[in-house]
Amino acid sequence: MAKDKKLVEQITSMEDDFAQWYTDVCIKADLIGYTSVKGCMAIKPAGYAIWENIQHNLDERFKATGVKNVYMPMLIPENLLNKEAELVNGFAPEVAWVTHGGAEKLQERLCIRPTSETLFCDFYAKDIQSYKDLPKVYNQWCSVLRWEKTTRPFLRSREFLWQEGHTAHATAEEAEERTVQMLNVYADFLENDLAIPVVKGQKTEKEKFAGAKHTYTVEALMHDGKALQSGTSHNFDDIFAQAYDVQYTDKDNTLKHVHQTSWGMTTRVIGAMIMVHGDNSGLVLPPHIAPTQVMIIPIRQDAEGVLDKAVEIKEKLATAGIRVDLDDTDKRPGWKFSEQEMRGIPVRVELGPKDVENGSAVLVRRDTREKLVVSIDEIAEKTAELLETIQKEMLDRAKAHLESHTYDAVTYDEFKETVNTKPGFVRAMWCGDKACEEQIKADTTATSRCMPFQQIRLSDKCVCCGKPAKAMVYWGKAY
Amino acid sequence: MAKDKKLVEQITSMEDDFAQWYTDVCIKADLIGYTSVKGCMAIKPAGYAIWENIQHNLDERFKATGVKNVYMPMLIPENLLNKEAELVNGFAPEVAWVTHGGAEKLQERLCIRPTSETLFCDFYAKDIQSYKDLPKVYNQWCSVLRWEKTTRPFLRSREFLWQEGHTAHATAEEAEERTVQMLNVYADFLENDLAIPVVKGQKTEKEKFAGAKHTYTVEALMHDGKALQSGTSHNFDDIFAQAYDVQYTDKDNTLKHVHQTSWGMTTRVIGAMIMVHGDNSGLVLPPHIAPTQVMIIPIRQDAEGVLDKAVEIKEKLATAGIRVDLDDTDKRPGWKFSEQEMRGIPVRVELGPKDVENGSAVLVRRDTREKLVVSIDEIAEKTAELLETIQKEMLDRAKAHLESHTYDAVTYDEFKETVNTKPGFVRAMWCGDKACEEQIKADTTATSRCMPFQQIRLSDKCVCCGKPAKAMVYWGKAY
Repeated sequence: MAKDKKLVEQITSMEDDFAQWYTDVCIKADLIGYTSVKGCMAIKPAGYAIWENIQHNLDERFKATGVKNVYMPMLIPENLLNKEAELVNGFAPEVAWVTHGGAEKLQERLCIRPTSETLFCDFYAKDIQSYKDLPKVYNQWCSVLRWEKTTRPFLRSREFLWQEGHTAHATAEEAEERTVQMLNVYADFLENDLAIPVVKGQKTEKEKFAGAKHTYTVEALMHDGKALQSGTSHNFDDIFAQAYDVQYTDKDNTLKHVHQTSWGMTTRVIGAMIMVHGDNSGLVLPPHIAPTQVMIIPIRQDAEGVLDKAVEIKEKLATAGIRVDLDDTDKRPGWKFSEQEMRGIPVRVELGPKDVENGSAVLVRRDTREKLVVSIDEIAEKTAELLETIQKEMLDRAKAHLESHTYDAVTYDEFKETVNTKPGFVRAMWCGDKACEEQIKADTTATSRCMPFQQIRLSDKCVCCGKPAKAMVYWGKAY
Repeated sequence: MAKDKKLVEQITSMEDDFAQWYTDVCIKADLIGYTSVKGCMAIKPAGYAIWENIQHNLDERFKATGVKNVYMPMLIPENLLNKEAELVNGFAPEVAWVTHGGAEKLQERLCIRPTSETLFCDFYAKDIQSYKDLPKVYNQWCSVLRWEKTTRPFLRSREFLWQEGHTAHATAEEAEERTVQMLNVYADFLENDLAIPVVKGQKTEKEKFAGAKHTYTVEALMHDGKALQSGTSHNFDDIFAQAYDVQYTDKDNTLKHVHQTSWGMTTRVIGAMIMVHGDNSGLVLPPHIAPTQVMIIPIRQDAEGVLDKAVEIKEKLATAGIRVDLDDTDKRPGWKFSEQEMRGIPVRVELGPKDVENGSAVLVRRDTREKLVVSIDEIAEKTAELLETIQKEMLDRAKAHLESHTYDAVTYDEFKETVNTKPGFVRAMWCGDKACEEQIKADTTATSRCMPFQQIRLSDKCVCCGKPAKAMVYWGKAY
């Protein structure tokens, strides 16, 4: 057996240093590589295959609601960006500017899109004439760039991949409906495919998207008790339509402004998945999104019949629509186990000479490490069942974690103590004033994550200033 | 019946003005829209859906040969670009430079990728250590930017979408094998999915990719007799590996440079498809790539049973895996026919009260306008058959056009007359000197398209200078 250079080395334990554990997993599970481009990462095959599955599953959900994909330019002329004041102020400090084409200085500089509201508005202004042209429900898959100072794999990088939906509607009601609908699509995707439960709610004025009337968000809780904004959906009302002059002729022959929305989800959710499900052996992928769902690892593969049977099992599983691979390299089985675990493959099939003799194989769950002996005759059905069980139980565990790490606070002392000693969400009442959000951030570093759709009245007073409460808010330290 | 604003207006006939016909089709078939970003277009749903099918079918072929998808940054630091002299000289005049991040002037400027050899080399230099890490067969789907002066939809725009494969191999032989393999993938895709026959061959030194050892190409012939380079595959040998220091430790424990390839296909092929198959009624899409393969158009849809039967047919076809849509808007059938024809949908199902009575429907081919009456019981099988027939016959017609527009020339007078009077390819012998290529271009505007793999010895002398011939070359005026 050849000596293998690429050992599955130890990764930092998450209890010792969660941030280092996270980075170690990104690297050792071969998801990303560093590049010579500051603040930008290379997404390696194992990472990109996850993104491809995310794209596929999200895109299918989008199209089921009537979304159509398009592609707009990556550059925005400065005068176009400048038309909407709030958006400019929100993004100007973090855009990259193109000033030269070849050797020539450009007459007008262009920025690389940090988001494409401006471009869609410009396009819709030309493309929409009549009420018959509405609604427009477009989306694009692309990369965007924001000149961040500090970066972390998937969570914050200068360039990142995402989808951005941009819609235009005749009425404010229809725009609001679409804003909520897409938030629900995100929540459904996160819960059912990534096994990540979320809190759905509205961002405060302070935390909403620059230029939006309001922003809805899905907030998830990482294993370390920090919050991660995992998808947002914005209702622009006719704010952008006014700035960019996007109008249509209505049935009554009058000109009206359209009502717009936008909604986005990024490669960030890969980071969320790592931090919700991972453990000290590496990545743990939910079966619905795992590029490889099952890895077959022969024990004593040189023994007669073992490799043949392994190939037979691979074909059985593939035929049943399971994404399966066989590790028949000359590494030791122990190495192969570690690699499969590091990569987060949900199920391992162990198969040795005894198993072949018995007509059985051993299924080992990545998430719980439970073993299950199954007859090879039934292996396809049993594995398919097991993958669904794993998917469901991963969500159940994440839900239990979310619930057990959500705390209520009524007094400010309680609030501060909870935020400082108990990682997780703290629910508390809020008066609606930005001043209290700023006070809380200064005192605890926690920010308002959202005003959840499901409101509970914990008290009548703002936890910070004591004035009458307007809403219950989820607070937390966030990525 | 409501008055419909969006008529299918007349487009310029291709005989009158082929260039204007092309632009009209791009606009009227709703493939693209103009933007306020100079030289960049918006790809609208009908255009992007074609690109999605191209991506899907190409990606499947790539993966079958072991290709894995990744994602590299869109920005290239200037010092990284500068490492390979030929590449810099080739691309420097046409890259866009980022000089500012937010309000800050950058210490080093970065260009937006015109192509990503530099980034993959930088990545491979870090990622490849041993012969065990080879081969690397990576690809990415992304957009690139080249600061072109004059632009045309799909054919030449500052930003365009493409895939770029970048591979690293232990040996020169393996790199050469991959270069040819990917060219064959392109040819197979173009012929079988886009119904575009191609000439496969090698580019001359003058026309090869900057920095490559040699470039292979697939050249297609448009309806107007102009050539279009439709995909290229480059063998870099170890030229880039030397410049970027991409080395591996071989089995014999010595350090060696890797051998690299790259290959790309772009949204240009959508332009090729339009110009090979389109007619004066608009787009004609090959069934394999058409987002909608069949449009059902009811005649007198208000008559009893017609719409119900149309829905039933839609379900039958969809169940058989056919991409089908039903136009049940309140436009007149004539309008609907024109729209379906403009959009290039391969088959139309016409269904009126009489058809319902007879249990039949009429299939109308977009390409030949032939009609076929079929029993509704058999409509799924008959339509599937017809789609394959159309696909095959579209390729046959394009092949016949290519053959009938390929001419041979032995003397220079013959050559010039043919190039100037007969749109198409001219095959002629060449001495191998760049001077003759330049002379021919100056005299005729034709360029060398490729030295085909299938060589025929038309004479012993260069058509231009009369010196001994080294190769037979396809010449043509090109997009």
